[in-house]
Amino acid sequence: MSQKNSGFGKSGSLNHLGFDLPDVWPSATCSQPSTTPQSDGASAEIIDGHSIAAIIKSQIADEVKRMKDTVGKQPCLAIVLVGERDDSHSFIHIKVKACDEVGISSSVVELRADCTEDEALEAVSNLNKDPSVHGVIVQLPLPQHLDEKKMMDVIDPEKDVDGFHPLNVGCLAMKGREPLFVPCAAKSCIDVLLRFGIEIAGKNAVVIGRSKIVGLPVSLLLQRHQATVSVVHPFTKKPQEITREADIVITDVGVPNMIRGNWLKPGAVVIDAGTNAVKDPSKEHGFHLSGDVCFEEAVRVASVITPVPGGLGPVTISMLLSNTLDSAKRAYGFV
Amino acid sequence: MSQKNSGFGKSGSLNHLGFDLPDVWPSATCSQPSTTPQSDGASAEIIDGHSIAAIIKSQIADEVKRMKDTVGKQPCLAIVLVGERDDSHSFIHIKVKACDEVGISSSVVELRADCTEDEALEAVSNLNKDPSVHGVIVQLPLPQHLDEKKMMDVIDPEKDVDGFHPLNVGCLAMKGREPLFVPCAAKSCIDVLLRFGIEIAGKNAVVIGRSKIVGLPVSLLLQRHQATVSVVHPFTKKPQEITREADIVITDVGVPNMIRGNWLKPGAVVIDAGTNAVKDPSKEHGFHLSGDVCFEEAVRVASVITPVPGGLGPVTISMLLSNTLDSAKRAYGFV
Repeated sequence: MSQKNSGFGKSGSLNHLGFDLPDVWPSATCSQPSTTPQSDGASAEIIDGHSIAAIIKSQIADEVKRMKDTVGKQPCLAIVLVGERDDSHSFIHIKVKACDEVGISSSVVELRADCTEDEALEAVSNLNKDPSVHGVIVQLPLPQHLDEKKMMDVIDPEKDVDGFHPLNVGCLAMKGREPLFVPCAAKSCIDVLLRFGIEIAGKNAVVIGRSKIVGLPVSLLLQRHQATVSVVHPFTKKPQEITREADIVITDVGVPNMIRGNWLKPGAVVIDAGTNAVKDPSKEHGFHLSGDVCFEEAVRVASVITPVPGGLGPVTISMLLSNTLDSAKRAYGFV
Repeated sequence: MSQKNSGFGKSGSLNHLGFDLPDVWPSATCSQPSTTPQSDGASAEIIDGHSIAAIIKSQIADEVKRMKDTVGKQPCLAIVLVGERDDSHSFIHIKVKACDEVGISSSVVELRADCTEDEALEAVSNLNKDPSVHGVIVQLPLPQHLDEKKMMDVIDPEKDVDGFHPLNVGCLAMKGREPLFVPCAAKSCIDVLLRFGIEIAGKNAVVIGRSKIVGLPVSLLLQRHQATVSVVHPFTKKPQEITREADIVITDVGVPNMIRGNWLKPGAVVIDAGTNAVKDPSKEHGFHLSGDVCFEEAVRVASVITPVPGGLGPVTISMLLSNTLDSAKRAYGFV
């Protein structure tokens, strides 16, 4: 083999950063039976996300009360919503309701779908400056004319309770550093593992998907917990061969039922971070929620599994409250 | 299995970030023969880092000349050195000499080993403010009384030609973002792969080690190039089993000869980013340089390999020049 690519032109250099190709997974269904390895008819322990969330929320409520009693202050989460998407309204409703439950105050700043970029950025800046606000999140997706990166970057890293600011992501990636906030869904994955006493150090962990919401941060967190981490994505050849070696599998795919039972090693721990709407005329809203994992198959192979719905979702919301509480504690020097 | 760890105390939450344990590898030697799989007596192509560096430097020199001729400006690299370490002086000498070769100006700001933190931070701040300086690096290691993180953080991300600022690391990690600078050694690994036409997309890549200098950034870069990346570290059990599945192996260990021939799949591409001084009374300075890879064994198994010395090292220096040139181009809007 000889040196194939000797040049770099005026524009800079070789493309060391690679091309930013979209992650498009093939669709999948659970309809065909797979040759699932069976654990002698055993069934995995199914993690109840609602009960974990209830415990976390109860502890947060206690802390919020202690803060109010001690320093007379209350954590506050502010949410910027641009436009009128139904799903965004639903998600915000869930977040606001969760804040109410634990005594965290919340405010929603609503902007018209056709607001200018300056107006949207200013809305975030105003929340940055407001000392009574401790967490600022921008509900995604944004209308197409707004630049998501710009909006994320303008959030004060000290109020970045979603953990998507590159400064927080950088600190998460670097040994010896601590981000101010870790993305909530990724933190939930680790929370579930720790809470159930699942050993992470020295284990083979495979993360399927690499979004900023789950895949990327959870792969970094697993490494911080000394797992040997492999990241699988749509360009991975034979992903099943990699997942079958994993003690811990975390999925962040967005394709219902893509991860089949025969992708898993018997006894694996499976955390399903997918929440996919699947058309279902039998349901009131015309769809049901499905995870990335073909649950009926996986539950017969795994040792522990999170269901969808009712698994990681509720825990994730409680982590948003936890991040907001942490931020308020930091702001007031309250320990 | 039941919920083992239900609580989080006043101090915050479960340790979602993990403990920052030091990466300590067992020592290794190449002295015992290993059962090396042989490629029928074949020998890997050995990459000549000096000739690659010469090509890159020649192109940089042309660009620097074009910049001088067109806008009358010259890129400038500034290096902050604290204390009197012999090895630091040697490294700086190499960098300054390389700058000279391509027409990049350089300056070394020398501070006494017992300077205060404020003095050290101010030295960096002054370089940040100086519009004639385009790259600022702090020679590591620093004396113990100085906080390396604080020093890195004060470098303007727009002059961070080492690429160690968390903002640049965060942008490197995140899909859809571009860091202003990528750490030089990691960029060199990718450069060598691209230059030799080695396919990265869809390949299994294993990175051994996870330092901010090589392991972390190269694992992120390989992912950007659509490799399936696994990161091996001292807590990995049976690292050989993982490396043996790899089409591309990049090492960043700091232990001479740790990666043996029988750790490799026949035909693998091996990039050795280790530069380890090994005691050797037969040498003038009392040591010789060795890589992380047991070269004599690996060269019989791999298809392509970088030697140490003379492999990645020279390319890395040329990447520092390339980053400095890029920074100057950006500063002057010169394309």
